[in-house]
Amino acid sequence: MTDAAAMDAYLSEPRDLYRGRAMCVVRPKGAREVASVLAFCSERSIPVVPQGGNTGLVGGQTPDSSGRQIVLSLQRLDRVREVDPSSDAMTLEAGVTLLRAQEIAQSVDRYFPLSLASEGSCTIGGNLATNAGGVHVLAYGAARDLALGVEVALADGRLLSTLGKLRKDNTGYNLTQLFVGSEGTLGIITAATLKLFPRPRSRAVALLGLRDPAQALALLNFVKDHAGPGLQAFELMPRIGLELVLRHIPGARDPLGAVHPWYALVEIAGFAEGEAERVASATLSQAIDGGFARDAAMAHSLDQAESLWRLRENLSEAQKREGGSIKHDISVPIERIPAFIAEAGARIAARFPNARPVPFGHMGDGNLHYNVSQPIGGDKTAFLARWDEMNEIVHGLVHDYGGSISAEHGVGQLKRDLLPRVKDQTALDVMRALKTTLDPKGVLNPGKLL
Amino acid sequence: MTDAAAMDAYLSEPRDLYRGRAMCVVRPKGAREVASVLAFCSERSIPVVPQGGNTGLVGGQTPDSSGRQIVLSLQRLDRVREVDPSSDAMTLEAGVTLLRAQEIAQSVDRYFPLSLASEGSCTIGGNLATNAGGVHVLAYGAARDLALGVEVALADGRLLSTLGKLRKDNTGYNLTQLFVGSEGTLGIITAATLKLFPRPRSRAVALLGLRDPAQALALLNFVKDHAGPGLQAFELMPRIGLELVLRHIPGARDPLGAVHPWYALVEIAGFAEGEAERVASATLSQAIDGGFARDAAMAHSLDQAESLWRLRENLSEAQKREGGSIKHDISVPIERIPAFIAEAGARIAARFPNARPVPFGHMGDGNLHYNVSQPIGGDKTAFLARWDEMNEIVHGLVHDYGGSISAEHGVGQLKRDLLPRVKDQTALDVMRALKTTLDPKGVLNPGKLL
Repeated sequence: MTDAAAMDAYLSEPRDLYRGRAMCVVRPKGAREVASVLAFCSERSIPVVPQGGNTGLVGGQTPDSSGRQIVLSLQRLDRVREVDPSSDAMTLEAGVTLLRAQEIAQSVDRYFPLSLASEGSCTIGGNLATNAGGVHVLAYGAARDLALGVEVALADGRLLSTLGKLRKDNTGYNLTQLFVGSEGTLGIITAATLKLFPRPRSRAVALLGLRDPAQALALLNFVKDHAGPGLQAFELMPRIGLELVLRHIPGARDPLGAVHPWYALVEIAGFAEGEAERVASATLSQAIDGGFARDAAMAHSLDQAESLWRLRENLSEAQKREGGSIKHDISVPIERIPAFIAEAGARIAARFPNARPVPFGHMGDGNLHYNVSQPIGGDKTAFLARWDEMNEIVHGLVHDYGGSISAEHGVGQLKRDLLPRVKDQTALDVMRALKTTLDPKGVLNPGKLL
Repeated sequence: MTDAAAMDAYLSEPRDLYRGRAMCVVRPKGAREVASVLAFCSERSIPVVPQGGNTGLVGGQTPDSSGRQIVLSLQRLDRVREVDPSSDAMTLEAGVTLLRAQEIAQSVDRYFPLSLASEGSCTIGGNLATNAGGVHVLAYGAARDLALGVEVALADGRLLSTLGKLRKDNTGYNLTQLFVGSEGTLGIITAATLKLFPRPRSRAVALLGLRDPAQALALLNFVKDHAGPGLQAFELMPRIGLELVLRHIPGARDPLGAVHPWYALVEIAGFAEGEAERVASATLSQAIDGGFARDAAMAHSLDQAESLWRLRENLSEAQKREGGSIKHDISVPIERIPAFIAEAGARIAARFPNARPVPFGHMGDGNLHYNVSQPIGGDKTAFLARWDEMNEIVHGLVHDYGGSISAEHGVGQLKRDLLPRVKDQTALDVMRALKTTLDPKGVLNPGKLL
C-alpha cells in the first residue's frame, strides 16, 4: 500500500502519542514473504517497522517521521499450522489474534492463559515480540513463558526456526527467548509454538475490601499459601479507581455494601468440580477472620464474575474519560509495594498538588500501572505537558526500590532514552553488541528499544 | 592448585568418560575474582573450563588433553546473598549446592522445586549453566524457568548483572536466558536470583501398574486433567527397570501384588491440609475404574513415599550394577512416546539381539532416559564399543519423531559433533555468531557445545 488513506491506520497508535510516515505498508502472506521483504530491504538499507495488531503502548510499532521507513504488517500471517492437544501445544502464525488463540485452545478442551485488555485485536506475534503480560502472569507467566519455540525472519532474509512441541531441549543456546521481548529489533517473529494447559473446571472470582496496601500484601501472601498454584490473578485497585469506573462506565456497580479504601480482585481456579468455589470460600472467610481483609463479595455466576472483572478492566478507560492521565507501567519487589505507593503519593503531592494517583494492577507480579489523573477541574493540556516531570518522580523512586520502569509494556520509543539510566551498563553494552551481530545494517525497527 | 594429586578430582567426571589435563585449577572466592581470572586469561588467550559440582554427564566440565587449559572451580562462591520469602526470591552464589538451596528455601517456609539425583553435590551455577531438569519440570519448569536473574563474568573480565527479584521486567533483551543453558561458553554464571514457591501442605505418591506406554499416555492425560497444576511428577518405568532395582538395590521391594509390564510413578501436591491425598485417591481410583491403569499402590507415610521414589531414582545405579549400558537423554512430543518406544525397541532388536532397552524417565515432559543394558552374560567392553552405532539408531529415530537428542543433560563434548545434524542450520549459525560476539578469543570452555 502506498495510498495515504489506506496507510493511515498503520501510521499512528491507539493513544495517538506517536504518528509517523512511511514509504509504504507491506502485507506479506507467509513467513517466506516476510523473509523476502527483509532480504530486499537489507540489500537497500531500508528500515522496516514490524506491526501486529497495532495495540502497543510504547510506540514500538509506528514508523518515524522521515517517510523513509516501511511498515511490515503481520496481520495476513494468520494460519493455524497445528493444534495438538495431546502434546499441549499449538503452532500459530504471528498475525493470529490473541482472542482467536484462546478460542482455538478452548475448541480442543485446553486453556491458553494469556489475557489482556486488547486481546480482540492484538496478535500472537506482537504479544511475543513485546513479551506481553496481562492478568494471569501470576499463575502462568508472561508471553515469554508460554512460547515453546518461534520462527523468525532475520535481518538478512534468512528464516530461523526453533518451532517444536518439545518441553525439554538442551541442544544449545535458547534463541527463542532472545527473540521474544526484542520488540522486532533482532528479527521478526513469523510463527510460534505455544503451550496449552488443562482447562480449569471451576473458577471463583471475588472482590475484597481492604484497609490499605499493607493489608493487600498480607492477603496476597495468605491466599498464595492457601490456594497454591490455583491462584490465577491478584489485582489491586484503590477506592478512587473504583469510583472512576462507577462514574464513567455504564452498568458498573459496587458489589460491596460499605466503602473501602482499597480493593483486591482475586481469581482462583480449580480442576475438580466445584473445587475453586470451595477453596475460595474457605480461604477468603479465613482471610476475613484472620484480619487479612475487611469484607468480600464472591461471584455466584459467570455473569457476576465478569462484572467484577469489568470493574478492574475498565479502569484505564474510566481514567481516560475523567480527563488527562500520566501513565507508568512499573514493577517493584512485591513486598515493597505498600512503601512504594505511600512514598510515590507523597512525592507527587509535593510537586503536583491535587493530582490524583490511581495505582492499580497486577500486584501478584509486583506490577502496578501507576497512573496519575489530573486535578479535578484543572487544565488537561497543562497537566500532560508535565509528563516527563511526573515520570522522573515515579521512575526515580522505582529505581531506588530496585524496580523496573517497564514491567510489561516494553520500551519502544517511549522509554528508549530512559534505558541507559536504569540498566546495568554492561548489560546494555551486551544488548548493543547482540543488535549489531543480528542486524548489522540496522534495518530492523531502528530507534526502538536501543 | 598445580599439584597433580590435588588437581586429579577436577580433571575427570563421574562416569569417567572424559579425563583431561590442566595447567592449573583456580578456586576464586567471589564474582570479582572470577572476572579477574577471565580478564587475565583473555589477555593471554588461555582457555578456561568452568566447573561446579562436577556432576555433569556430557563432559562439559572437564578440560581437554592438551594441558593448556585451566579449570575454574566455582565451589568457593558459596555465599547466600539474600533470602526474601515475601518476594519469593533468593540470591545465591554459583557454588551453593542444590541441596543447600532446597534447605535454605525450606528454612523460610518456601519451596525450591529443582530436584535431581546429584542434588547433594551439583551446584546452582552448574544447574543454570546446563539448564538442569529433574523430576519436577512438569509442574515448575527446568532450571531456566526458576531463574529471575543472573550475574555473569564475561570473557573479557566485565561483570554483567540481571540479578533482581522482579517478576516482570520488559526493559530490553532477556540476557538471563541467553546465559542459562550456554554451558559456560558465553560467560560464567557467578550468582543467580531464584524463584521460591509456596510449600505444598500435602503430597501424595503412588506407583501404578500399567499395560503398556499407550496406557501410560492416557493415564498422564487423565491425571493432568483431574489434578491440574497439583501434578508434580509423572515418571515412566518398564518392568525390567523395576526388576533391576529389586535385584541390585538392597531393601527395594515391589509394592504391587502382581507383575505389570510398565509402571508410572505419580506425585500430586496439595495446598490445603490433606488435599493431595484426597485428590490423588479420587483421581487414581477413577483412573483404575476408567481403564487408565491396572493397579495402584499409594504411599501412606513419608517413608513409603520415599521408598517409591527410590525405586525410580535408583534405576541408573541398578543398571550400572547389571553391567554395560548405553545411554540416551532424549525427548519427543509426549503423545509420540508409545510409538517411539515400540519402534526404537524393534530397531535395536534387529541390530543388537538380546540387548535390553530400559526406557524410563520424565514422561510428563516427553523426556526419556533411553538406556540400553547389555545382553545377559555378554561382553561389556564389546557392547560399549558399539556406543556410536546404538546412538545412531536411537538419535536417528528421535530426529524422525521431531525430538531432541539432549533433553536435559546438555551437549558438552559428548554430543557436540551431533549438533550440526539435528539443529536448524540458521539457528546454529546464529549460535556461532553469538559465541563470536561474546567470546571473540574463544577462551570460554572451548570445544564444548559448539
